Amino acid sequence: MLEKLKKEVYEANMLLPDYKLITFTWGNVSGIDREKNLVVIKPSGIEYHNLKPEDMVVLDLEGNHVEGEYNPSSDTATHLELYRRSPQINGIVHTHSPWATSWAQAGREIPCYGTTHADYIYGSIPCVRNLTQEEVDEGYEKNTGKLIVDSFDRQELDYEAVPAVLCKNHGVFTWGKSSHEAVHNAVVVEEVAKMAARSEMINQRIQPAPQYLLDKHYYRKHGANAYYGQGGK
Amino acid sequence: MLEKLKKEVYEANMLLPDYKLITFTWGNVSGIDREKNLVVIKPSGIEYHNLKPEDMVVLDLEGNHVEGEYNPSSDTATHLELYRRSPQINGIVHTHSPWATSWAQAGREIPCYGTTHADYIYGSIPCVRNLTQEEVDEGYEKNTGKLIVDSFDRQELDYEAVPAVLCKNHGVFTWGKSSHEAVHNAVVVEEVAKMAARSEMINQRIQPAPQYLLDKHYYRKHGANAYYGQGGK
Amino acid sequence: MLEKLKKEVYEANMLLPDYKLITFTWGNVSGIDREKNLVVIKPSGIEYHNLKPEDMVVLDLEGNHVEGEYNPSSDTATHLELYRRSPQINGIVHTHSPWATSWAQAGREIPCYGTTHADYIYGSIPCVRNLTQEEVDEGYEKNTGKLIVDSFDRQELDYEAVPAVLCKNHGVFTWGKSSHEAVHNAVVVEEVAKMAARSEMINQRIQPAPQYLLDKHYYRKHGANAYYGQGGK
Amino acid sequence: MLEKLKKEVYEANMLLPDYKLITFTWGNVSGIDREKNLVVIKPSGIEYHNLKPEDMVVLDLEGNHVEGEYNPSSDTATHLELYRRSPQINGIVHTHSPWATSWAQAGREIPCYGTTHADYIYGSIPCVRNLTQEEVDEGYEKNTGKLIVDSFDRQELDYEAVPAVLCKNHGVFTWGKSSHEAVHNAVVVEEVAKMAARSEMINQRIQPAPQYLLDKHYYRKHGANAYYGQGGK
Repeated sequence: MLEKLKKEVYEANMLLPDYKLITFTWGNVSGIDREKNLVVIKPSGIEYHNLKPEDMVVLDLEGNHVEGEYNPSSDTATHLELYRRSPQINGIVHTHSPWATSWAQAGREIPCYGTTHADYIYGSIPCVRNLTQEEVDEGYEKNTGKLIVDSFDRQELDYEAVPAVLCKNHGVFTWGKSSHEAVHNAVVVEEVAKMAARSEMINQRIQPAPQYLLDKHYYRKHGANAYYGQGGK
Repeated sequence: MLEKLKKEVYEANMLLPDYKLITFTWGNVSGIDREKNLVVIKPSGIEYHNLKPEDMVVLDLEGNHVEGEYNPSSDTATHLELYRRSPQINGIVHTHSPWATSWAQAGREIPCYGTTHADYIYGSIPCVRNLTQEEVDEGYEKNTGKLIVDSFDRQELDYEAVPAVLCKNHGVFTWGKSSHEAVHNAVVVEEVAKMAARSEMINQRIQPAPQYLLDKHYYRKHGANAYYGQGGK
Repeated sequence: MLEKLKKEVYEANMLLPDYKLITFTWGNVSGIDREKNLVVIKPSGIEYHNLKPEDMVVLDLEGNHVEGEYNPSSDTATHLELYRRSPQINGIVHTHSPWATSWAQAGREIPCYGTTHADYIYGSIPCVRNLTQEEVDEGYEKNTGKLIVDSFDRQELDYEAVPAVLCKNHGVFTWGKSSHEAVHNAVVVEEVAKMAARSEMINQRIQPAPQYLLDKHYYRKHGANAYYGQGGK
Repeated sequence: MLEKLKKEVYEANMLLPDYKLITFTWGNVSGIDREKNLVVIKPSGIEYHNLKPEDMVVLDLEGNHVEGEYNPSSDTATHLELYRRSPQINGIVHTHSPWATSWAQAGREIPCYGTTHADYIYGSIPCVRNLTQEEVDEGYEKNTGKLIVDSFDRQELDYEAVPAVLCKNHGVFTWGKSSHEAVHNAVVVEEVAKMAARSEMINQRIQPAPQYLLDKHYYRKHGANAYYGQGGK
């Protein structure tokens, strides 16, 4: 079942080592079939060079195991929480990619210092707080997902305009219209995180880029008036 | 038409990922035929592994589409402005290469700290200011080009002696006598940007190299008395 | 003799350049056969591309040469000290991997800033002091081992929970249930060391992650209640 | 003539891009035949992928062209000065390798922070001052060599114990008993320069390693009592 989605999610997972976003098994990618309400996700702790499309695990949105011989990724409950909250999200990536994770460990959102960032992400990349001990005890992975969605709700962030979040002392989640777009955004966040840290090193009094420049770049690539790429053809 | 130039510009574009100057499609290279006054440039948003020489777009210096099935790079108007102003420029590269872009995001010109820099670039690598909102609204890419040429005019910079510019909060443009020389200069700028940032980290009271040393290195490789390489043979 | 262990230790040594943990011959891996009380270790100063499984040196726990045509690694006495003290250690790696060694040269333990660290190592990665001149003169490598084990004793550290130590002004040792697990831990420490340094650069008032979060991640992967991976199957 | 030395020097030159010590043609290696008093050096400005052993240039110690169709490296006069002063030097490398050059641009010697450094280099890696304008005008490359040897004389440095020097605002020279050993030392200096910069970032009150530890490591690998490697066999 879901052979096409399994292959897609498998391939998206295999891109993580190719893009140097992960060490060992420190990442996972999922995708969703919105008609059947079924999620396909990487199994937990299997080495990438041994993965096969048929190893992907199929779950429903409540986390019930539907198909697959392995346990799903230990971060599955976080993925499910995001899928349940936003119909805009059809693919999710979690990694400990080194620059993004360095910001997460520093507990700081990534300010928008330039157009590389603005081309993909509208505004800062948020960093959610640590869970409390109670939240960890009650359900670590599920409550990580709840914290993200509550935080996006409170800040009225749009999941398409802000396709990434840092989790303090942990790592990064990105998403998109497909598992491949989510991987693409994970690469963007890592590159943006690297350049933001270096820009602060080069100029300690750095300011975020002006809003109208960010608007220009974001809307050059997104929305009705976009003119980047071959979309107008 | 322009098959030779298209091939040259195509190959120059393909060097950007080889030299790790770009992620995804974040860069573009163009070249000009000065006899026919026609510019050849990469199409917008096409992935590098799918590019072919015949995909290159041909435009006249006013930006009219002359040949090619794709939309040209979204930064085309900036390239054209540079070609119109300086007959010394026959190839142009734009990238978001990470170290150069980190300086651009920091809003700082790159001081000349050593002979690696002086071998290729005479003096600091300038960083032009942000466009104003009015300039962005009126024509972002064209006004980026105008800002660069106005800034070079005002500082009386020579396009051959200073073959690079940073655009604040954005990225870097380099140029040369051909598209390949422009790529060569893009590699130099990235390497120089990296070493300048690290040198400042190692010595926070660093000073630029003495002018006579920079003159020595620049003129060892450029002008009538150059003796680097096999030119005298 | 010990052909299987020799092959395993050989392969673990060959992983060091693959994971970019070493330059030239700056590292060594050993393994132990606990039934025979024999240690297998890389020969000293042999280039990696010339190594063969049969070049591995066999020693007893007192350092007596049992088999092999080469001198053992110059760090052998440190390895032996660790094997003698802890039956939990069945494989040891020593490298000068660049980020871990930068912390060692800085003379600082690596604080636990996030879950990447907590997934593998419980608490800070300790950094032992320099040997005194007397200790160096009396037996540099043996006393390095003694200093590590004395330091672990004094701090009541468990060798399984803390599978790594920095030696001030020198480099890093890691260990595990096998030589391969020791290499795995060496990769983790290098990645964690890199991210910790960058996190401090990004936020100079950074604090270690909360203990309950570290507990959660450590025990998600270790001990009776672990649920990461396929162990429950 | 000197076919063996030409091949050796050619191969040593080709190692520079392999070890990522150079960009483009920013480096050169030479070797000397001490019986014939002839130096073999890379031609100036030839791209590495086009180099062949027979392209190497042969000169006498006064710089007279003895054989080869190309101009020698523009830094030849510096190499010759070093060969003339020290019979211990039989191979020389010059590069702009990025970390070493960042220290050179910062105008600082590299302190000995650990045993990686001490295993190869006894004490700090010195950084010589800029030439004066008069020295540049009179003979840039020759006077660079003179400055290095005068500086080593004044500080009573031994060319075998200190096989490297930084030239302020410029780059690095290393040497050895052969062109291959000189390349080996160039790799060591780059690695040591990287770790020293990072160690200072991690601990801003860092101190050099204690002298007795450096002695221990240096003499573990050098001199009559060395026991590293297979030398005692």
